[in-house]
Amino acid sequence: MGIHYYFRSLNDLERIIRCPGKFKFEQHSVAAHSWKVVQYAKTLADIEERNGVAIDWKKLYEITSSHDYGEIFIGDIKTPVKHASPELRLLIQQVEEGMVYQFVEEHIPEAFKDTFHRQLREGKDNTVEGLILEVADKMDQVYEAFAELQRGNSEKEFIVMYRNALTKISSIPLYCVDYFMNDILPDMVNDEVLSPIDIKKITEEALAIGKSRSLKS
Amino acid sequence: MGIHYYFRSLNDLERIIRCPGKFKFEQHSVAAHSWKVVQYAKTLADIEERNGVAIDWKKLYEITSSHDYGEIFIGDIKTPVKHASPELRLLIQQVEEGMVYQFVEEHIPEAFKDTFHRQLREGKDNTVEGLILEVADKMDQVYEAFAELQRGNSEKEFIVMYRNALTKISSIPLYCVDYFMNDILPDMVNDEVLSPIDIKKITEEALAIGKSRSLKS
Amino acid sequence: MGIHYYFRSLNDLERIIRCPGKFKFEQHSVAAHSWKVVQYAKTLADIEERNGVAIDWKKLYEITSSHDYGEIFIGDIKTPVKHASPELRLLIQQVEEGMVYQFVEEHIPEAFKDTFHRQLREGKDNTVEGLILEVADKMDQVYEAFAELQRGNSEKEFIVMYRNALTKISSIPLYCVDYFMNDILPDMVNDEVLSPIDIKKITEEALAIGKSRSLKS
Amino acid sequence: MGIHYYFRSLNDLERIIRCPGKFKFEQHSVAAHSWKVVQYAKTLADIEERNGVAIDWKKLYEITSSHDYGEIFIGDIKTPVKHASPELRLLIQQVEEGMVYQFVEEHIPEAFKDTFHRQLREGKDNTVEGLILEVADKMDQVYEAFAELQRGNSEKEFIVMYRNALTKISSIPLYCVDYFMNDILPDMVNDEVLSPIDIKKITEEALAIGKSRSLKS
Amino acid sequence: MGIHYYFRSLNDLERIIRCPGKFKFEQHSVAAHSWKVVQYAKTLADIEERNGVAIDWKKLYEITSSHDYGEIFIGDIKTPVKHASPELRLLIQQVEEGMVYQFVEEHIPEAFKDTFHRQLREGKDNTVEGLILEVADKMDQVYEAFAELQRGNSEKEFIVMYRNALTKISSIPLYCVDYFMNDILPDMVNDEVLSPIDIKKITEEALAIGKSRSLKS
Amino acid sequence: MGIHYYFRSLNDLERIIRCPGKFKFEQHSVAAHSWKVVQYAKTLADIEERNGVAIDWKKLYEITSSHDYGEIFIGDIKTPVKHASPELRLLIQQVEEGMVYQFVEEHIPEAFKDTFHRQLREGKDNTVEGLILEVADKMDQVYEAFAELQRGNSEKEFIVMYRNALTKISSIPLYCVDYFMNDILPDMVNDEVLSPIDIKKITEEALAIGKSRSLKS
Repeated sequence: MGIHYYFRSLNDLERIIRCPGKFKFEQHSVAAHSWKVVQYAKTLADIEERNGVAIDWKKLYEITSSHDYGEIFIGDIKTPVKHASPELRLLIQQVEEGMVYQFVEEHIPEAFKDTFHRQLREGKDNTVEGLILEVADKMDQVYEAFAELQRGNSEKEFIVMYRNALTKISSIPLYCVDYFMNDILPDMVNDEVLSPIDIKKITEEALAIGKSRSLKS
Repeated sequence: MGIHYYFRSLNDLERIIRCPGKFKFEQHSVAAHSWKVVQYAKTLADIEERNGVAIDWKKLYEITSSHDYGEIFIGDIKTPVKHASPELRLLIQQVEEGMVYQFVEEHIPEAFKDTFHRQLREGKDNTVEGLILEVADKMDQVYEAFAELQRGNSEKEFIVMYRNALTKISSIPLYCVDYFMNDILPDMVNDEVLSPIDIKKITEEALAIGKSRSLKS
Repeated sequence: MGIHYYFRSLNDLERIIRCPGKFKFEQHSVAAHSWKVVQYAKTLADIEERNGVAIDWKKLYEITSSHDYGEIFIGDIKTPVKHASPELRLLIQQVEEGMVYQFVEEHIPEAFKDTFHRQLREGKDNTVEGLILEVADKMDQVYEAFAELQRGNSEKEFIVMYRNALTKISSIPLYCVDYFMNDILPDMVNDEVLSPIDIKKITEEALAIGKSRSLKS
Repeated sequence: MGIHYYFRSLNDLERIIRCPGKFKFEQHSVAAHSWKVVQYAKTLADIEERNGVAIDWKKLYEITSSHDYGEIFIGDIKTPVKHASPELRLLIQQVEEGMVYQFVEEHIPEAFKDTFHRQLREGKDNTVEGLILEVADKMDQVYEAFAELQRGNSEKEFIVMYRNALTKISSIPLYCVDYFMNDILPDMVNDEVLSPIDIKKITEEALAIGKSRSLKS
Repeated sequence: MGIHYYFRSLNDLERIIRCPGKFKFEQHSVAAHSWKVVQYAKTLADIEERNGVAIDWKKLYEITSSHDYGEIFIGDIKTPVKHASPELRLLIQQVEEGMVYQFVEEHIPEAFKDTFHRQLREGKDNTVEGLILEVADKMDQVYEAFAELQRGNSEKEFIVMYRNALTKISSIPLYCVDYFMNDILPDMVNDEVLSPIDIKKITEEALAIGKSRSLKS
Repeated sequence: MGIHYYFRSLNDLERIIRCPGKFKFEQHSVAAHSWKVVQYAKTLADIEERNGVAIDWKKLYEITSSHDYGEIFIGDIKTPVKHASPELRLLIQQVEEGMVYQFVEEHIPEAFKDTFHRQLREGKDNTVEGLILEVADKMDQVYEAFAELQRGNSEKEFIVMYRNALTKISSIPLYCVDYFMNDILPDMVNDEVLSPIDIKKITEEALAIGKSRSLKS
C-alpha cells in the first residue's frame, strides 16, 4: 500500500491509446491527451478571469489532470459505447467508478484516501471549473479529429467525433467558448484546409530558378 | 522435438509483415491476415452450403488456417517475385516447400508427421474447399489494397494487387463469388469512395449552431 | 447493411492490443491471438479424435475463429476487470454481448442474421468443442505470459496470468490436456529457461579459434 | 497569428521522445512526461499544504504544465549536453529561450503575450512552487530510469540519470521530499527488485495441481 | 577508450529521427538518411567523372558516410533552428562541433585521433567532393519532403524543405546537378503526381471482366 | 526508365527489417545496417593502409554501400535459409541476382547499365576490399546479436549468429581483423557484460546522501 502504486500506475496511461480499434494516421495516448486538456484549460481559465470570473485553480488543477484516470482500468471505450445505447454507457461508467474506488481503497494510505477519492471523481459538474474541463476535453477531440480528416482519414468515427465535439462546445455558456468559436476555430480551419499543396508548381518554380543560372560559365 | 516447436513458431508469423519494403499506411502481419482468411472462408462456405454444395469443414479448417505457414521461412515475397518471372516464382516455391518439409521432419513427433505434412501442404487445389481458400486469400488482398488506395497511397503495387485480386476472384466458379461481386463489393466501393470529407462544411454547420445560441443572455 | 460491414470490421481487431496499459516486450493483437487459438484448437481436436472422441469441425471452426469478436466494441479489458469483482465482470459481459447483438441487427442482412448470432455467441460451453476452445484460449495466455516472464518482464499481471491459465487448463477433462501437460509444457519450460546465455564464454571460444590460426603466415 | 498556433504546437510534444538516441525498452514523449510531472506536483503540493505551507496553485499549474515547452524547438537534448560542459549547456539554454520568445512574439495575440511569456519561462526558481517542480521533474527521471534498469537495460545513461535524480531530490528542503524518500522510494525499490521471477517453480506448482486431478474418472 | 565506443555509438543514429516533432507519414533515421546520401553521392560522382572531373574517392567516402555524426549529441534540430535566426544556428553548430571534438578526445586511441577529427569534421567545403555531399544531402530532403507532400501531408515544414532543397541544389555548379534537374527530377514529378488513383474505375473494369464470364454454365 | 527509380527504391530498404520473424528488442533496417557496414569498412581499410596495404577506395565505396541492395526483392532471408541446406541457399541467391539484373535492365538508362551491374554485383570476392566487406558485414552481426544477448534475448538465432560471425571474422587474414579481435572485441565484452546493475545499492547510496543532510534544521 502506498502512493507509489498510484504514481507507478500513471505510466499505464501512456500505453492506453485513444479510439482503440479505429484506423488513425496518428495515435494519442490518454496521458498525452490529459496533458493537452490541462494546457487548454489553463488558457480557457485565463480568458474567464479576464472577463471577471473567479477561478478555483486548485480545483481546476485536480479535475483536469486526473479526469481520465479511470481509463487505466477499462480503456478508452466510452465513445463507441455511447453511440450504442445510454444503458450500456451507464453500465460502463459504473464499472469504471467501481474500479477507481477499489484502487484507492486498496493502495492509497488512510491519510490520503479522502483526497484521492475527491481528485479521481468525475469532474465535469456545473461549476465554472467543471465546464472548462468539459470544453477542454472536447477541444482535444476537435483537434484530434480535425487532424485525421485533414490527412484524408475517411472513418466516419472522426466525422462524428468532430461534429459532436464542436456542437457540445458551442452549447456551453462560457466566455472562453466565445473566444474559441470566434478566434481559434477560424484560424484552425483556414490555416489547414485552404492550403492545397501544388507540388508540381513548386517544382516548376525551382526548375525555373535552376535554368536561369548560367552553369559554369 | 515436439509440437511445442510448431506452436511456438506461430508467434513468428505475428512479426512477418505483408508486402515488406512497400510503403503502407497500415501494416498487416501474416498471422492477422491468416485469421481474416479463416473468417472470410467461413462465410463463403456458408453461402455455398445455402446453395446445396457440400463442405468438408475439417479440410477447410486445416487449409485456411495454415495456408501461409511457409512464410515463416521466406517471408511474404511471392507477389513481387511473381511479377518478375514464372521461373523465379517456381524457385521460391521450391525453397518454401522444402523448408516446411524439413521443419516437420525435424520437430514434429513421428505420430503426427503425416497430419502436419497434410495440413501444411499447399491447399489451393480444385476442390470447393481449395477454391474457397483461393477466393478468401484474394479477398484479403482486395480489402488491404482498397484501404491503402482510399487513404491516398499511390504505390503502383497496390493498384496492381487490387486489380489482379478482383480479376482472379471473378474468374472462380462459385456461388459465393457471385455474392461477393454482387452484394459485398458494391457496398465496399460505395461506402468508402463516394463520401468525400468536407471539413469546412461540417465546421460551418457547427458554427451556425453555435451562433444561434444566445450566450448568457 | 451488408456482410461487407462485418468483413471490414475484422480489420479493427488487428488494432486492438491485448492487455492494454500493461508493459509488454511484445504486443499481440486480438486478430493474431484469434488465429493462434484457431491453430491450437485444430491440433487439440486432432488429439481428441485420435482418442476416439467425435468432433463437430464446423462448430469448432465457428466458435474458435470468432470467439473474441466482441472485443471490437470494448477492447481486451476482461482480465483486469475479472480480478476486481465478479459483479463488474458480469456488467462488462452484458455490455459486450449487447453491442454484438446490436451490430448483427443493424448490419447483417436478414437471411444471415441467425447464422451470425450463432457464430458470434459465447462459445465456451461444456461440449467438447467448447472445452477445446477454453483450452486453446488459455494456452495462448500461457505462451504470451511465458514469453514475457522469460524476457524479464516482472509485471505481476503476467505471473498471475501464467499461473491462472495453467491451473485452468489442467482442470479440464480432455485427452488433449493430458498431452499438453505431459508433452508440450515440459518442452516449453526446458527449452527456454534452462539455456542461460553466457556471452563471455561464447566469445572466448571464438577468440580461441581466432588465436589458433596463423595469420598471413 | 493566434492562440490556435500554440494549441496546435502542443501536438508536436507528443512526437518528441525523451532521451533520443539511447536504447530504451519503453519510450516516453515529452507530452506524457509533462502530464506525469503535473500529477506528481499535485500530490507533492498536497503534502506541503498538510504541513502548513501555502501553495500558489495557479502558479504551480502554470509552471508544471508548460515546463518543457521549449523542447518543441530543440528536442530533449539537455541531459547529454549537460554532461559535456557547462558552457555548452548554457548555449543550448539560450537557443531554447530565444526560440520560445520568438514563437510568442510571432504567434500569440498582443493581449496574451505577457501571459504566455510568463507561463513559458523557466519555472524552477527558489519558491516552494519552483522547488516542487524541480522535485516532480526529477521524480519522473527516477521512475523512467528505474523501469529501464529493472528490465535489464544496462545503458550507463540510465544509471547516471537514476543516481543524479535521486541525489538532486534528496538535496531539496521540502516536506514532500521527506515523504518521497521515506514512504514512496522504499515501496518502489522493494516492490520491484525483490521479486525475482521463478517460472520453473510456478510451472511445477501448476503441474502438481494438474497431476492431482483424476482425469475423466 | 577505444574505437569500440565509436562503432557502438553508430547504433544511436538508428534511433535519432529526422524532423523530430513534425507529423510524418514515414519516419527516417539519421542512419538510413546517411546511407542514402552515400548512395546518391556515389552516382553523382560517377557523373562528374564521366564529364572528366577527378574525384578523390577516399575523401568522398569519409565525408558522406560521417556527415551527420554530430547529431548523436544534439539530434536533428538544425532545420527549424536555422529558420529562427542565423545567430541561434551558429550557437547550435558550436555545441555540435564541441561535443564531437570531446568524444574523439575521450574515446578514440591516440594513434587514430587525427583520422577521426578529420573524418568527423564538417565536409561541405568548396571542393568537388564537398559540393557533391551538399547536393546529395539536399537530394534526400527532396525525396523525403516529396513523399510526404504526395501522400497528403500539409505541414508547411515539408513545403519549405522541398522548395529550399531544390533551390539550393540548382545553385551548385556541377555536371551532376544538370543531370539531376534534367533527367531525375522530371521522372520523379511525372511518375508520382500525374497518376491519380481512380479506385471506382479500376473496380468497374474488374466487375466488367467478372460479368462477362459465364458462371457455371 | 531512369536513375530516379533506383534512388526511389532505396527507400524500400528502410522498411526491410533484418531477421524478420524473430523476436528482437531492437529492429534494424537493411538501410541502417548498410550504413554501419560502410562505416566499419572505412576504419578497417584505414587500418590496412596503416599496415602498408593499398586500398581501392572507389571499389570499397561501391561494394560496401550497395552490398545488400538485392534484399529489396527478397527480403533478409538468407541466414535461416542457409541453415536449412546449401541447395536452398543457392536457389535463393539465383532469385536475388536474377531480380537485380532485371531491375537494372528495366530501369537504368543504357549509358549507366554497366556501372550499375558492376556496383550491384556480389562484392565479397578475395580482394582486400572484398574481404573488408566480409569482415564489416559480419561485424554488424556481432554488434546486433551481442546487443540482443546482453538485453536478455534468448532466441537461439542470435547465439548462433554471434558465434558464427565471430568465427568467420577470425578466419580472415587481414591486419584489421587482428585489431578487431585484440582491441575492439575485448572492449565490447568487458564494457557491457561485466557491469551488472545493482539498483538497490545505487538507491541506498542516494538514500544515505539524502539522510546525511539536515533537513530544514
